[in-house]
Amino acid sequence: MSDVTATYLVPSGGDLHKKAENIALGLTVGSWTNLPTLEKQQLHKHKGVVVDVQDDGQNGILTVRYPSANFSHDIPAILTTVFGKLSLDGTIKLIDLSFSEDVARQFPGPSFGIEGIRELIGVYDRPLVMSIFKGMIGKGLDEFEQQLYAQACGGVDLVKDDEILFDNPLTPFEERVKRGKRILDQVEQETGKRVLYAVNLSGRTYELREKARQAKQLGASALLLNVFAYGLDVLQALAEDPDIQLPIMAHPAVSGALTASDQYGISNKVLLGTLLRAAGADLVLFPSPYGNVALKKNETIAIASALTESTVYRPSFPVPSAGIHPGLVPQLVEDFGKDAVINAGGGVHGHPHGAAAGATAFRQAIDAVLTNSQLTDAAYKKTELAAALEQWGGKG
Amino acid sequence: MSDVTATYLVPSGGDLHKKAENIALGLTVGSWTNLPTLEKQQLHKHKGVVVDVQDDGQNGILTVRYPSANFSHDIPAILTTVFGKLSLDGTIKLIDLSFSEDVARQFPGPSFGIEGIRELIGVYDRPLVMSIFKGMIGKGLDEFEQQLYAQACGGVDLVKDDEILFDNPLTPFEERVKRGKRILDQVEQETGKRVLYAVNLSGRTYELREKARQAKQLGASALLLNVFAYGLDVLQALAEDPDIQLPIMAHPAVSGALTASDQYGISNKVLLGTLLRAAGADLVLFPSPYGNVALKKNETIAIASALTESTVYRPSFPVPSAGIHPGLVPQLVEDFGKDAVINAGGGVHGHPHGAAAGATAFRQAIDAVLTNSQLTDAAYKKTELAAALEQWGGKG
Ligand SMILES: [Mg+2]
Ligand SMILES: [Mg+2]
Repeated sequence: MSDVTATYLVPSGGDLHKKAENIALGLTVGSWTNLPTLEKQQLHKHKGVVVDVQDDGQNGILTVRYPSANFSHDIPAILTTVFGKLSLDGTIKLIDLSFSEDVARQFPGPSFGIEGIRELIGVYDRPLVMSIFKGMIGKGLDEFEQQLYAQACGGVDLVKDDEILFDNPLTPFEERVKRGKRILDQVEQETGKRVLYAVNLSGRTYELREKARQAKQLGASALLLNVFAYGLDVLQALAEDPDIQLPIMAHPAVSGALTASDQYGISNKVLLGTLLRAAGADLVLFPSPYGNVALKKNETIAIASALTESTVYRPSFPVPSAGIHPGLVPQLVEDFGKDAVINAGGGVHGHPHGAAAGATAFRQAIDAVLTNSQLTDAAYKKTELAAALEQWGGKG
Repeated sequence: MSDVTATYLVPSGGDLHKKAENIALGLTVGSWTNLPTLEKQQLHKHKGVVVDVQDDGQNGILTVRYPSANFSHDIPAILTTVFGKLSLDGTIKLIDLSFSEDVARQFPGPSFGIEGIRELIGVYDRPLVMSIFKGMIGKGLDEFEQQLYAQACGGVDLVKDDEILFDNPLTPFEERVKRGKRILDQVEQETGKRVLYAVNLSGRTYELREKARQAKQLGASALLLNVFAYGLDVLQALAEDPDIQLPIMAHPAVSGALTASDQYGISNKVLLGTLLRAAGADLVLFPSPYGNVALKKNETIAIASALTESTVYRPSFPVPSAGIHPGLVPQLVEDFGKDAVINAGGGVHGHPHGAAAGATAFRQAIDAVLTNSQLTDAAYKKTELAAALEQWGGKG
């Protein structure tokens, strides 16, 4: 069968079988029971099918299969089919989505993924470390260069723009790309370490592709995209473009408007996991379960699983973000394993000895965890880690 | 001041002034209090400003102004600024959004709007009537032509594709446009009445513009767009394109994932009203307050007001949809006035004498309301209306 299967969370009670049947018909052939036999034969391959109905007394869970004959194989058509009108129809949340293999293969998945990004930077055996520019709004290119240099020298693997830094006269996109490349080339010469910089690709939708191609030409090493301010299909187009071919980092900005309610919208697993991976995100940021801006741990694990489980696509890097400091590294590795990116803003820049030391402290914490040392033991010989633990605490 | 002002609904209690200040700083310059004077001077024009904080004991309402120096003047940048990270930050809903006039003028608004669409069809003095194809999935072009002809002959002003009908081998986009034009030209010759057909513009984002330009060339009269499956900026690009210039009808598919919760996401007024109008939707569909798939009446009125109130843009047509039958026309006119589109699917096709009679019954109901007649009185001389009232009821 060629189809897309969607699972919905609805309130318990009532005739859920009928509700599921109404969904399966209403979003496909419209009606069924009273159709003439000939029309039933004609429409059979277009009819939605109820796969499963559960009611545990608290929640109902409905699973419906939509034949792929009904929609073009693009994310807008699939979203409109499985959660278009239905998103407006009372209390209902889309909590799972899966494609039959032929449909899945219509989508690119990540061009690089975990393995490809590891190859770009030559790091294979540990979680990566990423840091974020701090307070760049209103600042100029000198500040940009200084911050990038400090973070990269400290030992991070990736640096990203803040998602609220757009193209602007003080730090224009093109200049960030060019100077970013120069600084990172210099760091590589000085330290032997290759670092990627994800520049925020922003502006009008129909300019993004050309802008990304130019960025590639100018030596960009990665792209940041506020995908939910655009559309998943835009991410896919960027990922598929043979003239771009840069790692794409998907930022979760605006996604909370779709995912935050328990009763409505789309689950984090589907939106940040299943769909971002299919559309081609190489790295996916999401709120870690540890900070102020936090997701429930089971939701973060579900995202990470959807990004890395065995499918037709390369795995994408999970990037649990927000509230991350070196003392959390043991917990991060326990929760997300080695194939994750440890992403910190304040946890790098807020280090008492500066951003370079902040980055170094993360690397020291990772080394400790991977050699089964306690952070506090490792900190005896590592001043940056010691200062970080004093600043933010941390056991393990 | 050049800025965007956003209003948020949050839970009552706690230090809401501090919360608002954290938003205003966190989404702009990052920090403030401890900055050196020189840096404060440099950053002053970038700093977010708390405009208002209310707490009525049930809800907190925070209003924050974001200087437009911080973002490029496109909807993705504005959405990411005002509700990017913030959408992920606990219980919070974006309930209002306004642009200073210079920012507002960066957006096109509708190319046609209410007046332009009235001119296209030569109808100035009454609500318009729209109907929807019924159950076209799995059906061919003959069925398409028959349905279009019946609906148009009955007296509707617009006919739209169902939003779940995508480009497909049985009724390809291009054929729907060409045959749609032929049928509507024929109806105009036969009846003197011009009818618009909104074809569902679907497929990959980066193909939409060219596809819409071709549709225009082939004689399309209007476009339907599942804008929330793409992105608001895509709608804007289509509205601005000088080679398209067709009325664009925005469908609310998927929008419920953003709007349905009382505590999270974005209000219907902002998403379906303010933003769709700024981006250039000429007609905006939303669930009426009367049917099964319904919005609260105050939400539908808020959408309609945002679409029609005096701004720098042309007004867009509100299109309350779902659950509409001729008996509801008095209520619709009372709630939405003359400048609205009365949109019916089942209320046209389910008429006991067929779709043409169903369309006619709507026109008869409108005539009655506009001449201050009771529907039941008018129905004495109008058999189509009489049959509709018998089928679905209706007072007034
Ligand atoms: Mg950020
Ligand atoms: Mg529909």
